[in-house]
Amino acid sequence: MRTTTGWLAGPDDPTLRRATLHRRDLRDDDIAIRVDHCGVCHTDLHALHTPRDAGLVPGHEFTGVVTETGPAVTRFAIGDPVAVGNIVDSCGKCPMCRRGQENFCAEFPTLTYGGTDRHDGSPTLGAYAREHVVREDFAYRLPAGLDPAAAAPLLCAGITVWEPLRALGTGPGTRVAVIGLGGLGHLAVKLAIALGAETTVISRSAGKAADASRLGARELLVSADPRQLEAARDRFDVVIDTIAVPHDLGPYLRLVALDGTLSQVGHLGSLTVEAMDLLVGRKKLTSAGSGGRPGTAAMLDFCVRHDVTADVETVPSARVNEVLDRLSAGDVRYRFVLDLADLDHADS
Amino acid sequence: MRTTTGWLAGPDDPTLRRATLHRRDLRDDDIAIRVDHCGVCHTDLHALHTPRDAGLVPGHEFTGVVTETGPAVTRFAIGDPVAVGNIVDSCGKCPMCRRGQENFCAEFPTLTYGGTDRHDGSPTLGAYAREHVVREDFAYRLPAGLDPAAAAPLLCAGITVWEPLRALGTGPGTRVAVIGLGGLGHLAVKLAIALGAETTVISRSAGKAADASRLGARELLVSADPRQLEAARDRFDVVIDTIAVPHDLGPYLRLVALDGTLSQVGHLGSLTVEAMDLLVGRKKLTSAGSGGRPGTAAMLDFCVRHDVTADVETVPSARVNEVLDRLSAGDVRYRFVLDLADLDHADS
Repeated sequence: MRTTTGWLAGPDDPTLRRATLHRRDLRDDDIAIRVDHCGVCHTDLHALHTPRDAGLVPGHEFTGVVTETGPAVTRFAIGDPVAVGNIVDSCGKCPMCRRGQENFCAEFPTLTYGGTDRHDGSPTLGAYAREHVVREDFAYRLPAGLDPAAAAPLLCAGITVWEPLRALGTGPGTRVAVIGLGGLGHLAVKLAIALGAETTVISRSAGKAADASRLGARELLVSADPRQLEAARDRFDVVIDTIAVPHDLGPYLRLVALDGTLSQVGHLGSLTVEAMDLLVGRKKLTSAGSGGRPGTAAMLDFCVRHDVTADVETVPSARVNEVLDRLSAGDVRYRFVLDLADLDHADS
Repeated sequence: MRTTTGWLAGPDDPTLRRATLHRRDLRDDDIAIRVDHCGVCHTDLHALHTPRDAGLVPGHEFTGVVTETGPAVTRFAIGDPVAVGNIVDSCGKCPMCRRGQENFCAEFPTLTYGGTDRHDGSPTLGAYAREHVVREDFAYRLPAGLDPAAAAPLLCAGITVWEPLRALGTGPGTRVAVIGLGGLGHLAVKLAIALGAETTVISRSAGKAADASRLGARELLVSADPRQLEAARDRFDVVIDTIAVPHDLGPYLRLVALDGTLSQVGHLGSLTVEAMDLLVGRKKLTSAGSGGRPGTAAMLDFCVRHDVTADVETVPSARVNEVLDRLSAGDVRYRFVLDLADLDHADS
């Protein structure tokens, strides 16, 4: 076993405390990664506040540098910059894995934290830590030209909106609306615009109009104003709904154009819609989350060519509890990224 | 005002009784139709059992012959065989109408019965009657070669499944599953097969396996057998769900392939799904009902070229109450059609 330092929450306690963590010794196809930057995802907040029996180390969108390689590793060498997202293994044999959608593995993929290692049955611990060990197949080369801090959120927030945008054929001529300008939303706006789509932001208030404009959005519609929504009826081919809590989908489905689709990516749980809101206009409801290996690699390649990264506020990892409080209060534009270097110092 | 004979249910009474009905005098663009055959739709049953203030004449999928034309009518002449579906007018100006999706008219289309005429405000009465009067734009030429009785259900049941099949790109190579082999379902199977799709029937029991085979389906899966559903996981690009009552969509969404779609066409009201059932495989949920004018005309053209009509049991209209009882009990293979000729006789 290897040891590293990270941020651990005990059972029934959402507070993260500095702790010594164990990582597995490298298997043949493993790489060890010095974690430099890890994005702070809403899922982390949710997981910390969910009852559990064991300790929790969040963190599933991170970048760093390879520090050691197993003997069978072929794709990486020591010193390579890499990125890892929210899945670190899958069965590799089911139809979804064979199609490169390991995120939909029939045996369920191994989550980067809160999962169970497929080989030794140990609980997986996330990347709020200075070191991580993963199969090389689930690490991605971080392209030179992508800032490592600003790229970290691409690995969860980015891929989660990239996959539906791509699957729904977003490109020049596509009219895209992004509901909610947060971590997921601001990346959806950047990616949709880079894909050539005419992109609109829908937000509770007009407060983010300047940001929407700076990101290149055509306009901002205020969802609290029924007239603005009514005027945009049937307008968008693709609607990416990033609202993180359950909400009435009806007003947003009515914005979808004939044969268009609303992809709800903000939360899990039950979704209720009126059949008439789908029937009138043959509108489709879908959801998305995470991505497969080929899609993730393609997204990183696209991002470096189109200069897309997250807008981040990078903070020393010792401030993680403060950061989570601010995230909970919605006080973030648009993604917190932890800088794990402070864990090298004994007193951080 | 013109008069005709038909089957009328009073307020708060689902029983249909023979009655003299009024039709409007022909407007410039109206045609009068001698109704020969009218399909019996689940919607009719539902409408009869829904509380209302006024009398009700059901019937919204019918065929007949033009008996009179208004002075501005250009497309029809006396003696022409015609067909009419469940909408008889729309605003004609909104984006959906301009795209030929009058069924999604922003002002709501005028329903063939239970609606309100857009010009004189009168309630619309359906085609359980010997004569109907409609705008020529909402009548379709009935192709020679389509049996008038067996073609009548195409105008509601047929178009309701045709539109989603077409919108979802059904053709050679598409794997289609049709849930429920009833009025809608058997037409979905016939149309999907005629479009070249590999088509599977999903039914509660194996009792319809012979019918499924006769219709050309590849196989029948028994929905009551979890092993059969599990074996078909992620298999179908297009699932047409015709179940007429609210039900758990989860087991059926799990049959949908990556990026595939389930179109629920069996009932209105609320639909609840688990986000994970959509997320895993980026599956889409939609609904459909009725169709636009170009789509309906294209379907009739397709049906005559591919010899598709409904399997019907044609009965004299005087047996309408018995027929509705049998429909309510599920005792129909696969659509009842009323023969309205008996209304010419005083004692029917």
